[in-house]
Amino acid sequence: MKQGIKIATIGGGSSYTPELIEGFIKRHNELPVTEIWLADIEEGKAKLEIVGNLAKRMVEKAGVAIEIHLTLDRKEALKDADFVTTQMRVGMLDARMKDEAIPLKYGVIGQETNGPGGLFKGMRTIPVILEICKEMECLCPDAWLINFTNPAGMVTEAVLRYSNIKKVVGLCNGPIGTTKGLAKMLEVDSERVYVEYAGLNHMVFGLHAYVDGEEVTKEVMSMLGGREKDGITPKNIAALSWEPDFIERLGVVPSGYHRYYYQTDKMLRQLLDDAKHEGTRAEVVRKLESELFELYKDESLAVKPKQLEGRGGAYYSEAAVQLIHSIHTDKRDIQTVNVRNNGALSSIPDESAVEINCVITKHGPVPLTVGDLPIQVRGLVQQIKSFERIACEAAITGNYQTALLAMTINPLVPSDTVAKQILDEMLEAHKQFLPQFFQRESITKA
Amino acid sequence: MKQGIKIATIGGGSSYTPELIEGFIKRHNELPVTEIWLADIEEGKAKLEIVGNLAKRMVEKAGVAIEIHLTLDRKEALKDADFVTTQMRVGMLDARMKDEAIPLKYGVIGQETNGPGGLFKGMRTIPVILEICKEMECLCPDAWLINFTNPAGMVTEAVLRYSNIKKVVGLCNGPIGTTKGLAKMLEVDSERVYVEYAGLNHMVFGLHAYVDGEEVTKEVMSMLGGREKDGITPKNIAALSWEPDFIERLGVVPSGYHRYYYQTDKMLRQLLDDAKHEGTRAEVVRKLESELFELYKDESLAVKPKQLEGRGGAYYSEAAVQLIHSIHTDKRDIQTVNVRNNGALSSIPDESAVEINCVITKHGPVPLTVGDLPIQVRGLVQQIKSFERIACEAAITGNYQTALLAMTINPLVPSDTVAKQILDEMLEAHKQFLPQFFQRESITKA
Amino acid sequence: MKQGIKIATIGGGSSYTPELIEGFIKRHNELPVTEIWLADIEEGKAKLEIVGNLAKRMVEKAGVAIEIHLTLDRKEALKDADFVTTQMRVGMLDARMKDEAIPLKYGVIGQETNGPGGLFKGMRTIPVILEICKEMECLCPDAWLINFTNPAGMVTEAVLRYSNIKKVVGLCNGPIGTTKGLAKMLEVDSERVYVEYAGLNHMVFGLHAYVDGEEVTKEVMSMLGGREKDGITPKNIAALSWEPDFIERLGVVPSGYHRYYYQTDKMLRQLLDDAKHEGTRAEVVRKLESELFELYKDESLAVKPKQLEGRGGAYYSEAAVQLIHSIHTDKRDIQTVNVRNNGALSSIPDESAVEINCVITKHGPVPLTVGDLPIQVRGLVQQIKSFERIACEAAITGNYQTALLAMTINPLVPSDTVAKQILDEMLEAHKQFLPQFFQRESITKA
Amino acid sequence: MKQGIKIATIGGGSSYTPELIEGFIKRHNELPVTEIWLADIEEGKAKLEIVGNLAKRMVEKAGVAIEIHLTLDRKEALKDADFVTTQMRVGMLDARMKDEAIPLKYGVIGQETNGPGGLFKGMRTIPVILEICKEMECLCPDAWLINFTNPAGMVTEAVLRYSNIKKVVGLCNGPIGTTKGLAKMLEVDSERVYVEYAGLNHMVFGLHAYVDGEEVTKEVMSMLGGREKDGITPKNIAALSWEPDFIERLGVVPSGYHRYYYQTDKMLRQLLDDAKHEGTRAEVVRKLESELFELYKDESLAVKPKQLEGRGGAYYSEAAVQLIHSIHTDKRDIQTVNVRNNGALSSIPDESAVEINCVITKHGPVPLTVGDLPIQVRGLVQQIKSFERIACEAAITGNYQTALLAMTINPLVPSDTVAKQILDEMLEAHKQFLPQFFQRESITKA
Repeated sequence: MKQGIKIATIGGGSSYTPELIEGFIKRHNELPVTEIWLADIEEGKAKLEIVGNLAKRMVEKAGVAIEIHLTLDRKEALKDADFVTTQMRVGMLDARMKDEAIPLKYGVIGQETNGPGGLFKGMRTIPVILEICKEMECLCPDAWLINFTNPAGMVTEAVLRYSNIKKVVGLCNGPIGTTKGLAKMLEVDSERVYVEYAGLNHMVFGLHAYVDGEEVTKEVMSMLGGREKDGITPKNIAALSWEPDFIERLGVVPSGYHRYYYQTDKMLRQLLDDAKHEGTRAEVVRKLESELFELYKDESLAVKPKQLEGRGGAYYSEAAVQLIHSIHTDKRDIQTVNVRNNGALSSIPDESAVEINCVITKHGPVPLTVGDLPIQVRGLVQQIKSFERIACEAAITGNYQTALLAMTINPLVPSDTVAKQILDEMLEAHKQFLPQFFQRESITKA
Repeated sequence: MKQGIKIATIGGGSSYTPELIEGFIKRHNELPVTEIWLADIEEGKAKLEIVGNLAKRMVEKAGVAIEIHLTLDRKEALKDADFVTTQMRVGMLDARMKDEAIPLKYGVIGQETNGPGGLFKGMRTIPVILEICKEMECLCPDAWLINFTNPAGMVTEAVLRYSNIKKVVGLCNGPIGTTKGLAKMLEVDSERVYVEYAGLNHMVFGLHAYVDGEEVTKEVMSMLGGREKDGITPKNIAALSWEPDFIERLGVVPSGYHRYYYQTDKMLRQLLDDAKHEGTRAEVVRKLESELFELYKDESLAVKPKQLEGRGGAYYSEAAVQLIHSIHTDKRDIQTVNVRNNGALSSIPDESAVEINCVITKHGPVPLTVGDLPIQVRGLVQQIKSFERIACEAAITGNYQTALLAMTINPLVPSDTVAKQILDEMLEAHKQFLPQFFQRESITKA
Repeated sequence: MKQGIKIATIGGGSSYTPELIEGFIKRHNELPVTEIWLADIEEGKAKLEIVGNLAKRMVEKAGVAIEIHLTLDRKEALKDADFVTTQMRVGMLDARMKDEAIPLKYGVIGQETNGPGGLFKGMRTIPVILEICKEMECLCPDAWLINFTNPAGMVTEAVLRYSNIKKVVGLCNGPIGTTKGLAKMLEVDSERVYVEYAGLNHMVFGLHAYVDGEEVTKEVMSMLGGREKDGITPKNIAALSWEPDFIERLGVVPSGYHRYYYQTDKMLRQLLDDAKHEGTRAEVVRKLESELFELYKDESLAVKPKQLEGRGGAYYSEAAVQLIHSIHTDKRDIQTVNVRNNGALSSIPDESAVEINCVITKHGPVPLTVGDLPIQVRGLVQQIKSFERIACEAAITGNYQTALLAMTINPLVPSDTVAKQILDEMLEAHKQFLPQFFQRESITKA
Repeated sequence: MKQGIKIATIGGGSSYTPELIEGFIKRHNELPVTEIWLADIEEGKAKLEIVGNLAKRMVEKAGVAIEIHLTLDRKEALKDADFVTTQMRVGMLDARMKDEAIPLKYGVIGQETNGPGGLFKGMRTIPVILEICKEMECLCPDAWLINFTNPAGMVTEAVLRYSNIKKVVGLCNGPIGTTKGLAKMLEVDSERVYVEYAGLNHMVFGLHAYVDGEEVTKEVMSMLGGREKDGITPKNIAALSWEPDFIERLGVVPSGYHRYYYQTDKMLRQLLDDAKHEGTRAEVVRKLESELFELYKDESLAVKPKQLEGRGGAYYSEAAVQLIHSIHTDKRDIQTVNVRNNGALSSIPDESAVEINCVITKHGPVPLTVGDLPIQVRGLVQQIKSFERIACEAAITGNYQTALLAMTINPLVPSDTVAKQILDEMLEAHKQFLPQFFQRESITKA
């Protein structure tokens, strides 16, 4: 084996990068990273430099032997990498804004991961990820691909089904956030809380919750009903309260994203209202981001600024560094990640991606056997898996009818006709990033 | 074995009965029915007599040796029966009217089988069916239970899971109607058309269509798009046109009921519109029924009147008589019925009811192996199965939270809060027929 | 579609051919075969001419418009065929003799289908069949491959997994023979008997037996115990009697071949004894065959001679013609054939071949859903499937270790060491027909 | 929760008990056991006292606050226990001797866990275990049942299927022994070796082996071939060498017990030879045991004597104490135990017991998902599961035919006739301990 670990971070100019750097600094003793390559595209050069320089200052201040490299040549970054992390956003915030705003015009929730917005984010992102996979086959065939890029479930599904890279893990901060939120609600230290998660990305349920190994699921469910702020919902989702009788009998802890499906009308009203006042989530994020980059520019700053936590992606990098750490050291602790199902959930195909508790070993995450999801939530999870599968196919083939099929079977979309209207407007709006749908004329991607 | 066959028809006073009688008359040579017992409840006595007398005149005119018995004592009818058919409607048309009208007040489609209305129809009906099953265990343990009562899928699921009667078949006229409609569209004789059906009741898809054994699915799918009247939609459902690009890529023939899920907004507008003009479907049916009963009273009438065909349940009795015939004679022809899945569809539990093509033998229907549903439709089917399972549990336990859970996870219902509103109003409205929810005070059923 | 049906019979010089011809003559009205091409290899030329001339006389005498063509050019036969039947024997009777005799030297039953002999028969045959499949892709891509060649289960498995031909059916006369035997035992007409078969080729069980649709399995099981001649065992297998208490509780009708596994020591003694007196089965067959060919030469013979029935393969051609007939006419009757499992038996992989009751349609056989095999027989069936899978892999790769693995895991073989001894001697003995194991020097096949 | 932990050890008079006591002493800090109840039957009173007094001396010498109680009243021991460990031997060594000797008379390996001997051990033991389960329901419904009693797989299967105790774990020292043996062979510390085990008890395979997280399976497989002493075979099994070509291609690490199936003839010869010279294994064990009890009597002895390690059950108690420790502290480390499959191995029923790597939590062991066993070993594992299932049924029903069925389908038994001979002689020999087969006249058990 090589001396130190080489990390390649695709989309290195992201505002999240300082968190990642901080994570590697903190764990440097056990996880001897020696090179971090931050790669980005021409359009992201300015941000890459701002973030990259902050990263360099952070490393220097910490006094650890990590080299930070900035590059616009992705292949240079990938060459001999041990871990490839992906956090790019094809089309950048502009695209996300459209993902959310266009559906809303038709009275439909955009939902940038499992909704109409997610379909488009997937169709823009998956071809780029698969291109990275091809490059990895040549440049770093033994590396692990750690994907943070949303829609993380759909992207993992696509890599598992359509690439030769088998060492892939999709990552989400959701489960960590839920566990921390539950700990707070239960007024115990979060290390004492263990939750058995199973489902799909942004469609994961906490099947059982434990404190010190003792089951507390019932108590949790009765605490969750009727709360204005439940503490387990990510900042980017309105934490509307649950009907107590519903949530108690549901019997499993939903993710914040489940509100889009179990509270569709209320969430839609909220989103329409937000759009009027503070703008869509994408606009809020854009504002946050530009403030962050202002901070990053400050040459006296050499640590991750606190304000980054308000960005919504809390624990994302923590999750990534922790995962890389456990793989590298064969730690065999339990983390919640997106991997090949392999029979862990019996009504999801073996070959599909699921988000599930895994033992993290040097040879990868091994899912803990669940058996099957409780019947009351099984159908919705399977429906989103149907959507993800057809969405992946649309992303790869660039077939119009397949994209319409994905849009129509999405549970947030009220009909084939509305699906077609949204699809047509979004295809036009994202044209630049969807070459597979437009005779592959001009290709522009991360 | 006994000499002739005894049929017990629960809900014998139904307007459909003449069709059933006609079926037994037509097949009398091969299917030697000697006794038909029409049983009904006190409240249905008047109708039972009208229909029963027509039945007697029909038999007499046809000159076949079938005795028609009318009774208000269900047990007398069940005693030593060979086949028990159930076609009752707990709460009668009044209840159905509420099933449809109350959800509409909240902007939600009632859908009397797989929607909120179906939940209530199931909760009223399942306890009565399970009571009949218990009586059958004593009075006719070897009889087949042929259930036409809707929601036929949910009822079959409940009998399979919660009773000791294993010889149960749920029956729907939908597949026959679709096949006949396709034949007309393809301009061929319906005997030449074969469709591989699989799914759930009112949630069944035609996976492949054949004419003379040659596959024509693609042609069918491209013919189905954009049609105003597609000819495969039952009369009780508005045959709104499908987006051609959607339906072509869907690749499998939907049932009329799929419009509620793939065209929710358009169907809702149509139903609201209908409710203003011609009333809900229940009101239309009530009018049709009272006209029919006027006809039935006519003592000179001794055949099934043509007008019955306009009632919407075309082929229902044809389906039933044909099924009984094939069981009795071990015919081994293929019919589409609701039975235990047993592995025919791999992502539905083995123990659950599915609607599927079966070889009909003397020992019952044997499903033809499908493997799995195509991924694009799998999720929706699984979601309705989740709903059916929870609805059955609510029907049996009378648990308020379980009923709310069923209502909320139904794909037609937009949120837990609206679910609660509809549930509360419907529980009150149907109080009389839901003793399991109201401390079992007063029990009134079929 | 073309005017008439073209049949290509690979291994046309087989002694079974007259039965096939007779079958096509009998059904000529409904199954308008116009050309039968009998193809064979150079070494089989003499036999091909004898059999082919008999076939021509048969057709002429019957006065049906079927052209008989004899050819040593397989491709000519395959060109535009509608059905390809394979009945060749790579290495001819000499090879079979070795398949049986060599294991016996080591005290092991040869068993030419699922035993050590079967492994070698498979390794000789599968490469040839896959070559035929490749030719079919070009010359008759829409044709059905009807494979009689043993080991039929292993061959079907190989075609399903390693070729692009999906329209393949493996055929065995065993189930028909068992049904006829049971009918005789029950003293009823065989048309009145229906048996639900499921398992693998030569490893199939009759799970339920019916007369006129009424279950008689228990009666059958108690009749089967202790019988010297049970009437359901093919002539090539010694019909040793079953322990009544064992067979009754087994509860499902075994095939004759199950004796090799449930009566291993007794069968071995019998085979050793036979080998001393009448020679191995292969030697008996050789004698029968040469007598048959003497008969066939007789130019006054223009019908299938009765003596062919003694050959052991009774009903083989009946089965084949019946199958072709039902496919051609979309008859949808039930036959027992080897096809892709597709979930019909839940503990066998979906992609594997099983022998099972199917509805025969124009688009192929559709298995009737069984659920799972009874637990008492499940393990043995799965073990033979493990053997078949590894044997297929050995046949294709020519890997010595894989062949040794297949030999060792076979339940008839007592140890890895004996497996190696038998393997080594048999590889040497069959060298000529196993080019894949010997650097592909000289290839000689059917 | 109560203050300290109460352990009830059924069969407390076993020679293994000192190891168990030593384990609890060593871990007393983290695992605060305060009471150990050693329960035994009247016939075992003398041994119980010898062992119990040694246990008391051990505890006293160690200076830990554990009370040792000796009792002949099982219920007293079970009352409010936290963990119940079972290590009894119904019929004692005499019975085991017969389990091995009687089959050998018929040229059949006795194999006291998965063979004919195992069938009888199971039939003697399972009814007693189920009786203990019933008592536990009343006396300690929240306790964990940790079963060491062989056949551990069959016993776990029986508890899972036929009792209401769901908190049951079957335990075997095999996997620990294999891992230690592999470590020695690889010349690394055993903590650095991790093996992915999956299968059934005494039928478990090491699917992948790792050193420091790096896969070494191939190296291991090529080292295992041709070795006289492989170091991974328990002392009670002759470590005959494997054919290198077989074992390499097998590709997974067998347990010592697999020799009975892959080297049947060689093992049989060895056993027959041993029986002539040193007696059956049971006789060897009897001698060892009486020597051990002589040692135990020595009042100056207050530690586990070294000689116990020669007994063959090395690591058994280590395994048990480690398991109890991890459950109690919710440690979430990985151990190999027998539990409900729940989908971890896809071709074994969900409800069945498997031996598999699990994360050990306070709420029990959670299996790591395997997917499926490699095809080459799947069939044998499934066959033993078939045997175990039928054996359990025979144990519970006392049905002669079912016992004969289990005996006949066992892969070590050559025919139904030999099965019957062995069965009849063994039933007679064990009559006293098989009341379920003899009209439940006189019941004598642990």
